[in-house]
Amino acid sequence: MPGSSFGRFLTVGTFGESHGVAVGAVADGIPPGLEISEADVQKELDRRRPGQSDLTTPRKEADRVAFLSGVFEGKTTGTPMAMMLRNTNVRSSDYGEIVDKFRPGHADYTYLQKYGFRDWRRSGRASGRETAARVAAGAVARKWLSEKGVVILAYVKAAAGIECTSFDAGVIERNPMRACDMAAAEKMELRVRELIEMGDSAGGLIECRVNGLPPGLGDPVFDKLEADLGKAVLSIGAVRGFEIGAGFAAAGMTGSEHNDAMDSDGFLSNNAGGIIGGISTGQELIFRAAVKPTSSISVPQTTRNLDGDTVEIRTEGRHDPIICPRIVPVVEAMAALVLMDHWLGQRALRGREPGA
Amino acid sequence: MPGSSFGRFLTVGTFGESHGVAVGAVADGIPPGLEISEADVQKELDRRRPGQSDLTTPRKEADRVAFLSGVFEGKTTGTPMAMMLRNTNVRSSDYGEIVDKFRPGHADYTYLQKYGFRDWRRSGRASGRETAARVAAGAVARKWLSEKGVVILAYVKAAAGIECTSFDAGVIERNPMRACDMAAAEKMELRVRELIEMGDSAGGLIECRVNGLPPGLGDPVFDKLEADLGKAVLSIGAVRGFEIGAGFAAAGMTGSEHNDAMDSDGFLSNNAGGIIGGISTGQELIFRAAVKPTSSISVPQTTRNLDGDTVEIRTEGRHDPIICPRIVPVVEAMAALVLMDHWLGQRALRGREPGA
Amino acid sequence: MPGSSFGRFLTVGTFGESHGVAVGAVADGIPPGLEISEADVQKELDRRRPGQSDLTTPRKEADRVAFLSGVFEGKTTGTPMAMMLRNTNVRSSDYGEIVDKFRPGHADYTYLQKYGFRDWRRSGRASGRETAARVAAGAVARKWLSEKGVVILAYVKAAAGIECTSFDAGVIERNPMRACDMAAAEKMELRVRELIEMGDSAGGLIECRVNGLPPGLGDPVFDKLEADLGKAVLSIGAVRGFEIGAGFAAAGMTGSEHNDAMDSDGFLSNNAGGIIGGISTGQELIFRAAVKPTSSISVPQTTRNLDGDTVEIRTEGRHDPIICPRIVPVVEAMAALVLMDHWLGQRALRGREPGA
Amino acid sequence: MPGSSFGRFLTVGTFGESHGVAVGAVADGIPPGLEISEADVQKELDRRRPGQSDLTTPRKEADRVAFLSGVFEGKTTGTPMAMMLRNTNVRSSDYGEIVDKFRPGHADYTYLQKYGFRDWRRSGRASGRETAARVAAGAVARKWLSEKGVVILAYVKAAAGIECTSFDAGVIERNPMRACDMAAAEKMELRVRELIEMGDSAGGLIECRVNGLPPGLGDPVFDKLEADLGKAVLSIGAVRGFEIGAGFAAAGMTGSEHNDAMDSDGFLSNNAGGIIGGISTGQELIFRAAVKPTSSISVPQTTRNLDGDTVEIRTEGRHDPIICPRIVPVVEAMAALVLMDHWLGQRALRGREPGA
Repeated sequence: MPGSSFGRFLTVGTFGESHGVAVGAVADGIPPGLEISEADVQKELDRRRPGQSDLTTPRKEADRVAFLSGVFEGKTTGTPMAMMLRNTNVRSSDYGEIVDKFRPGHADYTYLQKYGFRDWRRSGRASGRETAARVAAGAVARKWLSEKGVVILAYVKAAAGIECTSFDAGVIERNPMRACDMAAAEKMELRVRELIEMGDSAGGLIECRVNGLPPGLGDPVFDKLEADLGKAVLSIGAVRGFEIGAGFAAAGMTGSEHNDAMDSDGFLSNNAGGIIGGISTGQELIFRAAVKPTSSISVPQTTRNLDGDTVEIRTEGRHDPIICPRIVPVVEAMAALVLMDHWLGQRALRGREPGA
Repeated sequence: MPGSSFGRFLTVGTFGESHGVAVGAVADGIPPGLEISEADVQKELDRRRPGQSDLTTPRKEADRVAFLSGVFEGKTTGTPMAMMLRNTNVRSSDYGEIVDKFRPGHADYTYLQKYGFRDWRRSGRASGRETAARVAAGAVARKWLSEKGVVILAYVKAAAGIECTSFDAGVIERNPMRACDMAAAEKMELRVRELIEMGDSAGGLIECRVNGLPPGLGDPVFDKLEADLGKAVLSIGAVRGFEIGAGFAAAGMTGSEHNDAMDSDGFLSNNAGGIIGGISTGQELIFRAAVKPTSSISVPQTTRNLDGDTVEIRTEGRHDPIICPRIVPVVEAMAALVLMDHWLGQRALRGREPGA
Repeated sequence: MPGSSFGRFLTVGTFGESHGVAVGAVADGIPPGLEISEADVQKELDRRRPGQSDLTTPRKEADRVAFLSGVFEGKTTGTPMAMMLRNTNVRSSDYGEIVDKFRPGHADYTYLQKYGFRDWRRSGRASGRETAARVAAGAVARKWLSEKGVVILAYVKAAAGIECTSFDAGVIERNPMRACDMAAAEKMELRVRELIEMGDSAGGLIECRVNGLPPGLGDPVFDKLEADLGKAVLSIGAVRGFEIGAGFAAAGMTGSEHNDAMDSDGFLSNNAGGIIGGISTGQELIFRAAVKPTSSISVPQTTRNLDGDTVEIRTEGRHDPIICPRIVPVVEAMAALVLMDHWLGQRALRGREPGA
Repeated sequence: MPGSSFGRFLTVGTFGESHGVAVGAVADGIPPGLEISEADVQKELDRRRPGQSDLTTPRKEADRVAFLSGVFEGKTTGTPMAMMLRNTNVRSSDYGEIVDKFRPGHADYTYLQKYGFRDWRRSGRASGRETAARVAAGAVARKWLSEKGVVILAYVKAAAGIECTSFDAGVIERNPMRACDMAAAEKMELRVRELIEMGDSAGGLIECRVNGLPPGLGDPVFDKLEADLGKAVLSIGAVRGFEIGAGFAAAGMTGSEHNDAMDSDGFLSNNAGGIIGGISTGQELIFRAAVKPTSSISVPQTTRNLDGDTVEIRTEGRHDPIICPRIVPVVEAMAALVLMDHWLGQRALRGREPGA
């Protein structure tokens, strides 16, 4: 299994480069009978799509999904579901100086080291565009989980140095930052516009909450639920950190502060973030991801070219000053894939629905 | 693959419960010809063993490893290497009240939910004891990597609220905290002793550095090197967060601050922590893990029993007031397994040693 | 890994139903740098395509392959190679009575049992059309192996009750039966034409020889080379038996007859068929597959409908009177995928090319 | 997954060499709550054990199984079940001339090619002894399946050139050949005794029937039920061929002969052997395996030594003149593992027991 597939009971493989013919996903293991349409998937893709606001790259990609297999008469058949998004905005002429210079923060140098091969059409598989395929597959998992009562919600918790201090689920899709606090969102926007002016970029923090999960999902050893979620989220290009529940703050707590007590009604706190011993508790699952600032900036940077010379580079053109708002649906998608995978695994183990 | 195995090219499965007959590991995919002895493995196990100092649990476990297969005349044969550690200190009489009460912070409740089954002998697979099997397998991977010039070093960076402010590799194994700063280590010890008095426990931060890694290890999509490292580390019982390079701090940086520039001599900084686009750069690899405070404390806590009643619990007896010093070798082991796995994968892809 | 992917180091997943939008394959793990074009793949697909002669179904499928990813400037990049074949001849009107009757010999009944779902558009995933995706992926593996000096050749050894008594590689692609003996091929054709007249069908025996394979490929236990070849070949729809080397005849031999002696020049015989202890010997690899007669016949048959009533069925329309000639390239493709997979695995184990 | 593990939802890994410390198996994915004892497993191991009659090798191996994990209070816990058999009869002095000569029919030569390493203690992983670990794991699967009403029965159908002409399940365990026909068994014995006199060996045919299987097990594409059974059986050392239902005879039949008609009561025949389109029909599952004559014979043979010289070899000492009777329980074990694996997979797909 050489690196482009994910999951054990629900397996998703993605294919495609940012500047090739298409990107796509094949999801195998989806149970038969789920009602799903291209519109259901498109809805999620539109949240990841470039060009949603002036805070995202103006690159125009229709990101129109087409189902190639696995659905018949509006329902999944139980066989692999292939989905494809043709690349429509592939301008081979606009590569310019990146053809022979390694862009700082990008995978140009490491790709060459790994493959011994230079795909000068920007980032190939390392492009954020690959995540469109994940969102497509995740949309199916999300719909399946939603029919089980599971609700997944991610949002920007901090960006460009500004933190949300309140949480209102209702505002998330109503501000271009996808922040959970409208006042903070406005400050973030202002700061991001300043960075655009400077040709620079910003990072941020994404939080994800999952409600309606039954207890008992996850494995006690390597495939702990938080380990699989961590891998899933850390496999998203710009993510540099992952924490569950109290997370890094737990390192500074005492056991009596951190332990979640129970009584006859259930848990009295949730420092664990909904997972103990690798297995879901049935509480709200809550985790966070640290997102680095976008690597493509137009500030001049020092780098090296293919000949090994020191050169200057300015990454002109279309790029996101902050990628967080577009990563929100990717985080949700990856969470959905992990949770559905473990749900199916638990069905294999017990022969019935978890929590039943 | 139901949750107890790890890795694709080098696969390690562990077995065993803390209070059963034995714990062990089977490592498949180790190339033939590696010189390895039980003493090589024992050396690492001794670093994880309980009873190393008065800051660890006094539970006595010899943790004596026996090779069952895969080694002939002092060298690996290329076939599965099975290693076993018999449990010697299994006192079935000392379970006391934990038999029917859910211990806060432990997997007692979630195990029952997952398996519909109550193993009242403490934590079963969720026990920290399972990590001895990982350390055994990791010791083999570590030796293999060391012959390639790869050096893995983990240590405590912060504990019990005290942070290291200097780094001296030479002191790590010379203080019971395995901290990288002797002055900080002494303060940590004092604080931990206070917590012992109070029947409470502490968490901390572990940092790991890997040197000598060639560029080109890791996959660009799901199996990014940081994603696999993250999963590996998050699968260690008490770990609640993982970050690579600048990690969570990256969320507050700008692109021009975070991007690692290059010149003709190489990279000029290492905010990426040695991985860009999921693939190693050839620089030092650096990541951190947040470790929660030990769940077993003797402070009285509120919990629930099997009948669903609210009850009080005090986890008497043998436990670690802080688990960080003993997790250090586990982190190193998991890092070694991930790195060797990717190394072998790169050999499959390119047909020769990476970096060659 | 829910059933639609194959291989460990080279993983191939297929998707698509016979009467859906498209069928396709995604091959992950192909090393970078292989020169490959759609024409290379098309050449193999044309050998599997319907309508090659009047002995195959007249169903018209262009079977035109399109590369979606993984190839840049005529070479593989090392990332997943997705290939798609659109279904062009999907006549939804011609299903007729098969909509509610189980066709004998087809998977109609078992699919309903498995999925609880009736896809009345003929065979869905169980269609022979799925094998086009295998041939596409196999063509890439074949090209890769051919550059290593490995030559894979399959042909019809017996069909419709007539056996080849000579072997001439040169005639295989020059008779519509793909038989290795021209005189036998003519008799086969005559017999098949008689069966067409009767509305009946025939089976046959396919043999495959691989030359140029280095010794050392295959694993000693579960993933023996013959076990993986056996699975690969038995996963082709109509195959009901597999044997390697002397195969079933070995059951009647003595050890002194069957053992392949060696001398200083090498092996003196090849009853083992090129694999001993699951590992290639470096000799010619030789195996055979038994192919059942095509299930679709126009002779009236007794069956059951969805209501459980006994009914008569006549599968009118387009079908192959014998599928063997079209399975020949599928057998070659599956052999290529297995051999390349083990080749890559051996590179992971040893860090260099096998046989080097 | 480097070759020593098997199965997707139920994963079994084996370890150990014939002349090392122990052989063993780790089975992961066994649902919690199955009542199982070492005696249940021992019963199956005793059927595989050497020294059952004077027709098997007199090598004395107690083959005493010990459970290391995964069972608590007589029931499986849902966590990995490790089982170990210590090697008791390891005489390092009796290797004699095999130390530097390649034994014909054995994996000595191919192992050296694969691993670049000479384990001169006979066959290492390639030894039939490894199958004891499979029988141990298979015994658990078999017990689990038996509680679902599934009965697996294998027996010798032909041996040493003599075929059974009747079938009586009651005689199988009452003759040392494990043949299904007592009269044939007696002839087989006579013939085998003649071969013992001559220092030669015999092969045979094993047939396996499974009753009580629900319809719907198996996957339509690569993981067809017959493909997984074929791989499982072909991974047993001496097996050289596999066929399902009519098998190789199907190659000579017409469609009207081979198709299994149905009526309102069910299927009217079973040429398919209980699997159509890769999925179980709910009928009796029936398959056969061709077993080669034992490679170890005391007839002098020509071979090569490590220096490449032509030499003569006589494999003195303890060996089976025919391995078939001892492979019967191994075939049953492998069938049990495959069927349970697919059963669990079907639970994941549908969320309930198959057939329910």
